[in-house]
Amino acid sequence: MKEKIDQLKSLLAEKDDLAKTGELLEWDQQVNMPHGGAEARSNQMGTIQRLAHEKLTSPAVGGLLKELVTYAENIDPDSDDARLIKVANRDYERAVKVPSEFVTEWTKVTSMAHGVWAEARAENDFSKFQPSLEKIVDMARSYAEFFAPYDHVYDTLLDIYEPGMKTSEVQAIFNALRPEQVALLKKIKGSPQVENDFLYQPYDVQKQWDFGVEVITKYGYDWKRGRQDKSAHPFTTSFSINDVRITTRFEPDYVGSALFSTTHEGGHALYEQGVAQAYERTPLASGASLAIHESQSRMFENLMGRSQSFWTYFYPRLQEFFPGQLGSIDLDAFYKGINKVEPSLIRVEADEATYNLHVMLRLEIEIALIEGKLEVKDLPEAWNSRMEDYLGVTPSNDTEGVLQDVHWSSGLFGYFSTYALGNLISAQLWEVMEKDMPRMDEQMSKGEFGDILDWVRQHIHVHGRKYDPGELVQKVTGSKIDAAAYMRYLTKKYSQIYGF
Amino acid sequence: MKEKIDQLKSLLAEKDDLAKTGELLEWDQQVNMPHGGAEARSNQMGTIQRLAHEKLTSPAVGGLLKELVTYAENIDPDSDDARLIKVANRDYERAVKVPSEFVTEWTKVTSMAHGVWAEARAENDFSKFQPSLEKIVDMARSYAEFFAPYDHVYDTLLDIYEPGMKTSEVQAIFNALRPEQVALLKKIKGSPQVENDFLYQPYDVQKQWDFGVEVITKYGYDWKRGRQDKSAHPFTTSFSINDVRITTRFEPDYVGSALFSTTHEGGHALYEQGVAQAYERTPLASGASLAIHESQSRMFENLMGRSQSFWTYFYPRLQEFFPGQLGSIDLDAFYKGINKVEPSLIRVEADEATYNLHVMLRLEIEIALIEGKLEVKDLPEAWNSRMEDYLGVTPSNDTEGVLQDVHWSSGLFGYFSTYALGNLISAQLWEVMEKDMPRMDEQMSKGEFGDILDWVRQHIHVHGRKYDPGELVQKVTGSKIDAAAYMRYLTKKYSQIYGF
Repeated sequence: MKEKIDQLKSLLAEKDDLAKTGELLEWDQQVNMPHGGAEARSNQMGTIQRLAHEKLTSPAVGGLLKELVTYAENIDPDSDDARLIKVANRDYERAVKVPSEFVTEWTKVTSMAHGVWAEARAENDFSKFQPSLEKIVDMARSYAEFFAPYDHVYDTLLDIYEPGMKTSEVQAIFNALRPEQVALLKKIKGSPQVENDFLYQPYDVQKQWDFGVEVITKYGYDWKRGRQDKSAHPFTTSFSINDVRITTRFEPDYVGSALFSTTHEGGHALYEQGVAQAYERTPLASGASLAIHESQSRMFENLMGRSQSFWTYFYPRLQEFFPGQLGSIDLDAFYKGINKVEPSLIRVEADEATYNLHVMLRLEIEIALIEGKLEVKDLPEAWNSRMEDYLGVTPSNDTEGVLQDVHWSSGLFGYFSTYALGNLISAQLWEVMEKDMPRMDEQMSKGEFGDILDWVRQHIHVHGRKYDPGELVQKVTGSKIDAAAYMRYLTKKYSQIYGF
Repeated sequence: MKEKIDQLKSLLAEKDDLAKTGELLEWDQQVNMPHGGAEARSNQMGTIQRLAHEKLTSPAVGGLLKELVTYAENIDPDSDDARLIKVANRDYERAVKVPSEFVTEWTKVTSMAHGVWAEARAENDFSKFQPSLEKIVDMARSYAEFFAPYDHVYDTLLDIYEPGMKTSEVQAIFNALRPEQVALLKKIKGSPQVENDFLYQPYDVQKQWDFGVEVITKYGYDWKRGRQDKSAHPFTTSFSINDVRITTRFEPDYVGSALFSTTHEGGHALYEQGVAQAYERTPLASGASLAIHESQSRMFENLMGRSQSFWTYFYPRLQEFFPGQLGSIDLDAFYKGINKVEPSLIRVEADEATYNLHVMLRLEIEIALIEGKLEVKDLPEAWNSRMEDYLGVTPSNDTEGVLQDVHWSSGLFGYFSTYALGNLISAQLWEVMEKDMPRMDEQMSKGEFGDILDWVRQHIHVHGRKYDPGELVQKVTGSKIDAAAYMRYLTKKYSQIYGF
């Protein structure tokens, strides 16, 4: 059987080469590609994705898996081989249901749509993007049908990013969470407000870049195995465990944007850089799921990067970078300022108390689109009315509203809820970490992040995709994914800041 | 037959997608990739190149070509279809002789060797690179044998870059040229020398970048269909007719390096941007050969970029960028300075009077390596002794000597002579252009390059690979490739500068 496993690994390694090459085509499109390259790029992405799909769904892979799945049932179920076979088989079973012509078409359509979305967003004109999005939603619905029968049509999309998770489970978690979040928001609104005007003034972009680099270097990001670039929408991508890149973006008149996107993407990148080297070029060489991934990015962005301990160490340094802007603002005022709660329009800039509400809005809209209960042309209205309901704010235009996120232009349906689930998991992990490392806060306040990185490396990163997300959370925290730890975290943090 | 041609085009388009994706992997490796990514990248390149090779050599392509080659003999031989079939068939016939395992191995070996070469060069240690180069030379010799029988073993490599050209033809051209170049060099050395010290002082790198951008923008480089980055070895790459990128490099203490590498790569890029849009994703969408390519890069770098007329327009502008360095140097002194002849160690920095001697040295060494008459371990000595013979200078270390060029680390054997052939062709074309456009010099001195670009677009660029290089030179100039025009150009230019 050893030989068959090696054969399988060798075939999957080529599939991995193709997939990672596809990632490079995508990264380059977002970071470097001149406008003129769009059409050729969409053809290239279409071809590479189709070949990756064909490689995964080849009869050779199917034949090997058939034998190996039985074999895996009779060895240590926690061995790397057993897990690799299980994960590969899950990927295979998903992929064979999708015709390769669909994959090519899907890749081409979404690749072209990315440029259209960017233009529509720049020109603040949803109608420009509407035809592309209609095509994408139609295709996403056709895609879902490849997986019939299903409990809920949206399950088929959610499962791409969150293996094993059901729409009904997410809805149950969110339905329980929403009133608690709303109640917390109400308490905060009823308290004396905090100031954050000082964050909104000219901040030299190069200095913003340099400070962000200092922070993620301290976090442990390995620059020999990565790099940072600028892009319209920050993201992390991995071409290898040893080449994990992040992007960020800058606002010259607001210091928070680049800082928190850098720490966020840094969290993602640390995860990918921390996967066991033995998993390179195998299906295990990535994160367990998007929610687990988000638990890492949100942990490094928020639980660490917006904490009092973190800024005890880093604030004097930030003041050195920006003496004019921050010299007269003390640590406490700064800490409160970066944690100011204010219902706002843009998800990625939202504070921790309102962020999940943005996600819930998108989830409901997505489900309605996929169910066919909402038409694309009615999206801006559906978006704006929900923004009013949940957050009490209304976008003045579509760039601040329905056009703000890149995901739909890339066909990423089923993705959004993982952002909120990641928040919940980050807090669940954090409670365990606080028990395991009582000196954690003290260490952060000295700029020492080594023990924290070691902990997440050992408990989360190193395993890659070996464990299913639910299983991993259970293994590390002893519980299912739930909102209690996150609400405890938010309540403690904001009651201190807002004094209720 | 229309249907078969479309089938062929469709298969070749996918091959083109793979090849261009391979180019991106390569470009990224040289421009962006962190050190840690090298191993994964070499696997990715190996897989992509093998798939491109398999696509080109597939029975489907072979079958279609068999029918279409006969068909092409009965239609207008100058039609795009006839030419496309001819060029595709030549690519196919070359490719089927090479096993796809060899392609994968070759790509992996050369991809890894690139990093080893860069390290050896940085550390000035040829012995570090020697094992990689030995492997590459062995493989290049094996590769040559796939094309047996041959007149000369090196023909098989030369033909990759210069279709139809024989080693004996190049040797005949070079043997006739060498004594003329040496005689010219002697005359120059016997004349009063010119000064160029002012080129060697601190020049702000950002300003160098900005000036270079101004120049190639005036040349007509389309930034919507390209971009410029930095790399250790400047190069041009094309992911599409509409995404043609260049790289350059800077020396903070010498203004010539970035300037002439930017105009050089700009010339290459204008060629690729000028290919007929109808050829996108076909085998015709590239240059006719490397020598024709080099005729364009050397024309924009030298015949234009080192001419008196060019600097009549651009020198005042350059003085504005660098008033401290150049304010007191007049145009005539500057023009002479950038054309100073001085036998030197580095090919890419060599003046026009000595450049071809660098190339001849490499050609002789390459032929000896491929013939098996020279061993890799003896390369530094062979290099240094020829440098002394031809140019009268001896490298003080291998970084200045045998390690200076990237080509061998990338397995590019058969490539170097095209640099000298390109010089010859550039002068042949220039003589025709001077007849066709008597106002050319006057236009350049006003910063007008539109007519020149139109001319090369119409006579060279637009045709892509439609014509063989020899055929194209014949068609445009009425002669074969020969050295007479180039020697007339050099003699006229240097007799004026050196007053003999």
